Amino acid sequence: MTKSDSKKRRVLGLDPGTAVTGYGIIDCEGQILVAVDYGCIRVPCSMPIFDRYLAIFENLSELIVTYAPDEVAIETQFVKKNPQSALKVGMARGVAIVAARKKEILIFEYSPSVAKRAVTGNGSASKQQVQGMVQRLLKLPKLPTPYDAADALALAICHSHQTKKIIL
Amino acid sequence: MTKSDSKKRRVLGLDPGTAVTGYGIIDCEGQILVAVDYGCIRVPCSMPIFDRYLAIFENLSELIVTYAPDEVAIETQFVKKNPQSALKVGMARGVAIVAARKKEILIFEYSPSVAKRAVTGNGSASKQQVQGMVQRLLKLPKLPTPYDAADALALAICHSHQTKKIIL
Repeated sequence: MTKSDSKKRRVLGLDPGTAVTGYGIIDCEGQILVAVDYGCIRVPCSMPIFDRYLAIFENLSELIVTYAPDEVAIETQFVKKNPQSALKVGMARGVAIVAARKKEILIFEYSPSVAKRAVTGNGSASKQQVQGMVQRLLKLPKLPTPYDAADALALAICHSHQTKKIIL
Repeated sequence: MTKSDSKKRRVLGLDPGTAVTGYGIIDCEGQILVAVDYGCIRVPCSMPIFDRYLAIFENLSELIVTYAPDEVAIETQFVKKNPQSALKVGMARGVAIVAARKKEILIFEYSPSVAKRAVTGNGSASKQQVQGMVQRLLKLPKLPTPYDAADALALAICHSHQTKKIIL
């Protein structure tokens, strides 16, 4: 698929985290959704702290070069409790955003409830329900694991349905 | 100064933030400290949100290429209250860390009280006291402004004094 092909879009869903960053890539053509790849970038805890963010950046940059997505769908992060956790999540999120914008890829943002509703019809769906519906919608031979990857695919599916909330 | 010159070190102090990222570059040779440059990267609020982080990344990367620091000193960020603020600060911090590690520059981390104590002798010094002592220690013709830049210079001075707390 190329960017000149206006009917098709390739979407990269991203669920960034310090230890695990879920990703899911789908091709969208009208109602037809095809999973291209999904998984997660795991950064070992044994790695020096600052190098973990570089590893996330480099792995994501490589993924973006490999799959050349047209758009990125990322989760709106609401962190209600622990500010130190928020700081860490923010660091991974900042790194992911720069990796995408460096390649001039548009980023769209969806709240977790919007992404859940897009795939299950229920904004409060469980992780298992999201996982099951992602499998069905993408006709995957098995449940997409881990949850971080399933969530990333859900974000990509959500974006394929609605592109109203354009952040950039 | 080159990295092969073992007596001299160039330190880049960084105080990352979403709107303003302070920086301060000093050359250290024994007790002699010389300010090379300082200031701040300001990202306009009018800029699309995700592009702000790319702007911080690109400006910092340019600064690193221009001044070729040997080491980076960054503030340990403690965010006690607002998790949403912590998320934003984390994003800027993650971006700054990747900009430095991408160039293989070692990063050292100091708490605000350690940095304040290093320049004023008092871990609870005010921003004005830090600013005044940074001016004296670096023999600057005027007070370093804004506070973000003075804080960044204080971090660089702190690192020149003590390199015990090696994070990486």
